Amino acid sequence: MANKIRIAICGYGNLGRGVEKAIAKNKDMELKVIFTRREPEKIAKQTKTPVVSIEERNEWVDLIDVVIMCGGSATDLPKQVPMFAGMFNTVDSFDTHADIPSYFAKVEQEAQKGGTVSIISTGWDPGMFSINRLYAEAILPEGKTYTFWGEGVSQGHSDAIRRIEGVKNAIQYTIPKQEALECVRNGETPEFTTRQKHLRECYVVLEAGVDKSKIEAEIKNMPKYFADYDTNVHFISEEELIKEHSGMPHGGSVIHIAETSEENKQVVEYSLKLASNPEFTGSILVAYARAAYRMKKEGASGAKTVFDVAPNMLSMKTTQELLKMV
Amino acid sequence: MANKIRIAICGYGNLGRGVEKAIAKNKDMELKVIFTRREPEKIAKQTKTPVVSIEERNEWVDLIDVVIMCGGSATDLPKQVPMFAGMFNTVDSFDTHADIPSYFAKVEQEAQKGGTVSIISTGWDPGMFSINRLYAEAILPEGKTYTFWGEGVSQGHSDAIRRIEGVKNAIQYTIPKQEALECVRNGETPEFTTRQKHLRECYVVLEAGVDKSKIEAEIKNMPKYFADYDTNVHFISEEELIKEHSGMPHGGSVIHIAETSEENKQVVEYSLKLASNPEFTGSILVAYARAAYRMKKEGASGAKTVFDVAPNMLSMKTTQELLKMV
Repeated sequence: MANKIRIAICGYGNLGRGVEKAIAKNKDMELKVIFTRREPEKIAKQTKTPVVSIEERNEWVDLIDVVIMCGGSATDLPKQVPMFAGMFNTVDSFDTHADIPSYFAKVEQEAQKGGTVSIISTGWDPGMFSINRLYAEAILPEGKTYTFWGEGVSQGHSDAIRRIEGVKNAIQYTIPKQEALECVRNGETPEFTTRQKHLRECYVVLEAGVDKSKIEAEIKNMPKYFADYDTNVHFISEEELIKEHSGMPHGGSVIHIAETSEENKQVVEYSLKLASNPEFTGSILVAYARAAYRMKKEGASGAKTVFDVAPNMLSMKTTQELLKMV
Repeated sequence: MANKIRIAICGYGNLGRGVEKAIAKNKDMELKVIFTRREPEKIAKQTKTPVVSIEERNEWVDLIDVVIMCGGSATDLPKQVPMFAGMFNTVDSFDTHADIPSYFAKVEQEAQKGGTVSIISTGWDPGMFSINRLYAEAILPEGKTYTFWGEGVSQGHSDAIRRIEGVKNAIQYTIPKQEALECVRNGETPEFTTRQKHLRECYVVLEAGVDKSKIEAEIKNMPKYFADYDTNVHFISEEELIKEHSGMPHGGSVIHIAETSEENKQVVEYSLKLASNPEFTGSILVAYARAAYRMKKEGASGAKTVFDVAPNMLSMKTTQELLKMV
């Protein structure tokens, strides 16, 4: 392939490493550089890709087609994406659902100024789950949509446990309740309470001499995070935590139920079973980087969401190959 | 809503009736007219919508935004869609996979001439299944995709049985083999034979005095349709056939398996459980009619496939509402 799409990664944590692996599986792309806020020398040992400080980004403007933004949604992306957009085409996986409209507006302003394309909130939720909710609701507008998450590790809930005094480390799994899942798959459309849809399994390593029952109560009663759920707390050793709970599996299901006429129920389901959440999310970012590159080439500019991107923009295949795939 | 999208249906069989029901659930649309090849008076008794002969279509050019083509793929659509495209925006569910590229070329020629938009081969396979295969393969290009059909009624296979001399009526169900389905859902990637993926259940009503074992052998040995499958033949009365087998359920699954790195398997599944195949397909056609209308308004023209249509084009929601849904 003559002209590969030239990619930069910004942020080299779990997600950045997932993106790096995904780029290696996409022959029309090459990874040119990694931007980091940390000391580039420290990162450089972990990868064969050149690593430079985020401060040097201006020097790369003509050498990069798309920057894949791999920072966190809490503080990194809201700061970094508006900084990069306008100078570079970008893609990100900003996932704070409630803040997407205001985040979009900020990125839109920069991207319109620079005439670049920035696709925000790719990934799987938001992202592939959003797309599947939209397709199902557009086709069957009078239906009801359920989203189940898990079985998988929730970083937010794991962090919440880790912040408790006396907790050395912790991993929290979100698990959809099978009864609820089966009931929806069979076309029923109940109103679930929070407790009826998911349960939470916590694996906790304590500091020496800490009272187990006190910590257990503190977790189970934590408002928002655990109080509304059936929560199980397991105390394990740090060794076991590292050995058994170092993976980052996740997944879930979007299920849409609708009647197209009396008694004719239609059930649409999209499900993910992911052995590695960051590697899957990284793969989605890479496909949307291709779309950003192409949309810019076709004359588009501004902030985009996954809803604005036609499926053909994501694929390496030619128009003729795609026609055979319909 | 001030300006509803003005729809015409061409062809009033099972699919046409499914489209009529779907339009009633989409408040931004109204069904203006049904075109038929048959005598309009006969159809008129079945519906409140005006019914006119297909020959009168020219008189409706300024009164219709999109024509939803509901004929069969074997003979109707290849003849009718090029006849309507160029004068009207159209959508159809042409489903002869192998002929899609040549069909596309024919429709493209007419639509480009007339400056109209024609979205071909919507429905669920081709259609939603194609989209899901494309998304999964674009995100995880080194994976393997499996498609399972059923449990559901195959019209083609039912017809094949009905053509046998001595058969009065028949319904054939395509059923995915649970072992194969489970194996793929668990992330295995075997090569299946035809027999390993699906089985075929046939419910057959015989003419009086016909030899059951002869017919059973004839069905089971029919090349292409049944010979490569485990096929079960059940002889039943016409009364039972009408009572138990008049529904048109269908469905299936697209499952994509890929490794993003050693031992990290990712499983993506899209599944449909449809009580009524024509009503679900009709609902998809209606959503793509909205897309055809909008794409034309935005200045597009020519033949399009589902791959060319961004998800936002299908939805009744406003841009601001969609942003909240990402």
